[in-house]
Amino acid sequence: MTTHVALTARAFGAQGIILPTSASQAAQTAEDITERFGGPFDVLQVTDPGAAVGAHEGPVVHLTMYGQPLADVVGPIQSALEEAPGLVVVGGEKVPGVVYDRADWNVSVGNQPHSEVAALAVCLDRLSDGAWASRSWTDADRRIVPHPAGKRVIGEQAEDGYPED
Amino acid sequence: MTTHVALTARAFGAQGIILPTSASQAAQTAEDITERFGGPFDVLQVTDPGAAVGAHEGPVVHLTMYGQPLADVVGPIQSALEEAPGLVVVGGEKVPGVVYDRADWNVSVGNQPHSEVAALAVCLDRLSDGAWASRSWTDADRRIVPHPAGKRVIGEQAEDGYPED
Repeated sequence: MTTHVALTARAFGAQGIILPTSASQAAQTAEDITERFGGPFDVLQVTDPGAAVGAHEGPVVHLTMYGQPLADVVGPIQSALEEAPGLVVVGGEKVPGVVYDRADWNVSVGNQPHSEVAALAVCLDRLSDGAWASRSWTDADRRIVPHPAGKRVIGEQAEDGYPED
Repeated sequence: MTTHVALTARAFGAQGIILPTSASQAAQTAEDITERFGGPFDVLQVTDPGAAVGAHEGPVVHLTMYGQPLADVVGPIQSALEEAPGLVVVGGEKVPGVVYDRADWNVSVGNQPHSEVAALAVCLDRLSDGAWASRSWTDADRRIVPHPAGKRVIGEQAEDGYPED
């Protein structure tokens, strides 16, 4: 699941991800994908993610099903992101209470239980106004060419990109 | 992971989900969440999901990182969905080739490797023009009240809604 969070952050335009040291496999996969499909995308592992959230100086958005609807706060968050790089926090029930307090916005992507991966994807999509779809990637060994019925890859041998977890 | 797919489908407006018989835990969780947070959301388990895709009479959208960009085909898919209920297929490398052939659209939510959960969420968000955010739920035992800083639940005792997997 953490691997999916990391790859979703990368695919939807995040500059990088901060992971706990326990998530070594997710970190490795995110770095491998960046190596093959391009970057930049920084992977940082820390022993205390809660402290990293507390130390962040820009806007902090915490995704939680209990928060304010995303549509209600997209504008203010986008304005804040023009001033400083933001941090989007996901983590479900593992999130310590300090995150709720530090967060500038506790935001829900629907007040229904679903998935931190889904919440992160839709949040980044809305905050970027879909800009992720047209971003360019540097140092990519391979590139997928959109096709209506098959698999077309420029570069190394094709392989499916949705990892098991 | 399959649990997250099922809950994402429900949260973003699908009428139900078809799962393989092997995904009993995901099916049970989706039914439990529907029991508590409301429906309608139908959970069907089949021995041969590929055959179920082949037998579907309405539009079929297959999400794959190799497909056409979502933004390019949203309009035609929305038009088709006005005529008949659609089926959105996710499954990564486990998807048999017959799905590529049966699909009316092989669609990519970005041509980068990420997550079938993220792809499903963004696809349903775009296809519904965000209508999931304002849908009503019937027979819900509990309802979350959006709040800027804490957890507010009407009904039973609160618990975090992003399940472990």
